[in-house]
Order: sequence, then structure tokens, then C-alpha cells
Amino acid sequence: MAEKTDAQVNIGGKTYTLSGYESEEYLHKVAEYLNTRIDELRNDREFNKLPMDTRQVLLNLTIADDYFKALAKIEELQAVIDKKENDLYDIKHDLVAAQMKLEKAGSRKK
Amino acid sequence: MAEKTDAQVNIGGKTYTLSGYESEEYLHKVAEYLNTRIDELRNDREFNKLPMDTRQVLLNLTIADDYFKALAKIEELQAVIDKKENDLYDIKHDLVAAQMKLEKAGSRKK
Repeated sequence: MAEKTDAQVNIGGKTYTLSGYESEEYLHKVAEYLNTRIDELRNDREFNKLPMDTRQVLLNLTIADDYFKALAKIEELQAVIDKKENDLYDIKHDLVAAQMKLEKAGSRKK
Repeated sequence: MAEKTDAQVNIGGKTYTLSGYESEEYLHKVAEYLNTRIDELRNDREFNKLPMDTRQVLLNLTIADDYFKALAKIEELQAVIDKKENDLYDIKHDLVAAQMKLEKAGSRKK
């Protein structure tokens, strides 16, 4: 079993001690991403006037939006893979047909 | 330009009016996802004992973790596409070679 890690990360200006099975490096990477999104929102003057819970929900929505965009990209790439899979199937068929013709041509020569 | 939508969504038991260029359907889908994650965390008794800001940070980390997992999947699929691209290149090369041999065999016959 993986060992539990304790990592101190700064998120939104506060330090939290996170305990989990993820590597410290990963937790810092995630924290860095969250801080980028938090800073972007805080740069908007209107955002800072909103009640605390609305600001939290907007941050949640921002991260979830990134996640849903990534899911859409996954779907898109999966379609590309399916298409290439079909192309490979077709071209393999053409190759086998050509090789069979070649074999026939070769045996006629003998 | 796309029209701005106002959508009422319930997140974590509170109703928020979201205004943006995303469709109402999309906003409800994102809210549903957030509520699933919120419910999962709230089902853990220890979670509910934590201070409000720590609970928020844990929620943010949970969503960000989903996002990073999706990014890793994108990288993985991109590698699959590159591999298939190479396979296609190689097999196209084999096919052209076979077709050239066939042409030669055909012209010898005449």
C-alpha cells in the first residue's frame, strides 16, 4: 500500500496541511492551479464584492468548467482514435488483398 | 454574439442565479456534478467537523483532482493517437511497396 503523505500547501493565501496518498509534488501542482484560478477571480473587482459563499460557488464552477472542458476533449480524442482505428482496419484489408495478389502473381511465374 | 443566459441552480442546498454565456442545460449539468461531490464529502462525518474554509478547500481539491485526472487521460489518449498515426504511416508504406511490386509483376506479364 502507498504511504500517506503530509504536505503543507498554500491555497488562496492560507496554509493547509493535506494528508493523503497523493505525492507532495502532485498536491503542490493542484494547489498552484487553484491559486491561479483564485487570483483570476480576485482580479475582478465585482467578484470581491460578492458574499463569501457566492465567491466559493463561483470558484467551484470555474474549476468544474475546466473539468467539463477536459471531458469534452477526451470525447473528441476518443472519436479521433475510433476514426484512426477504422482507417487502420481498412488499410490493413487493402494490404492483405495486395499481398494475396502478389502471391498469386508470384506462383504464376513459377 | 451568444446571448447571456440567467439560470437558477441549486448548489450545496442553496439557490444561485448564474448569469453567463453557457447554456442553462450545461449549468445544470455542472451543478449536478458539484452536488454529487458535495454530498460525497458531507457523508463523511469527519468532514462536517472541519472549519468552513477547510471544507471549501477540500471541495476545491476534489474537483481539481477530477480535472487533473482528466488531463492525464487526455495525455494518454494523445499518446494512443500518436502511436496509431505511426502505425498508419508504416502500413501505408507497406501498401505502396506492395502495389509497386504488383505493378511491376503486371508489366512483366505483358
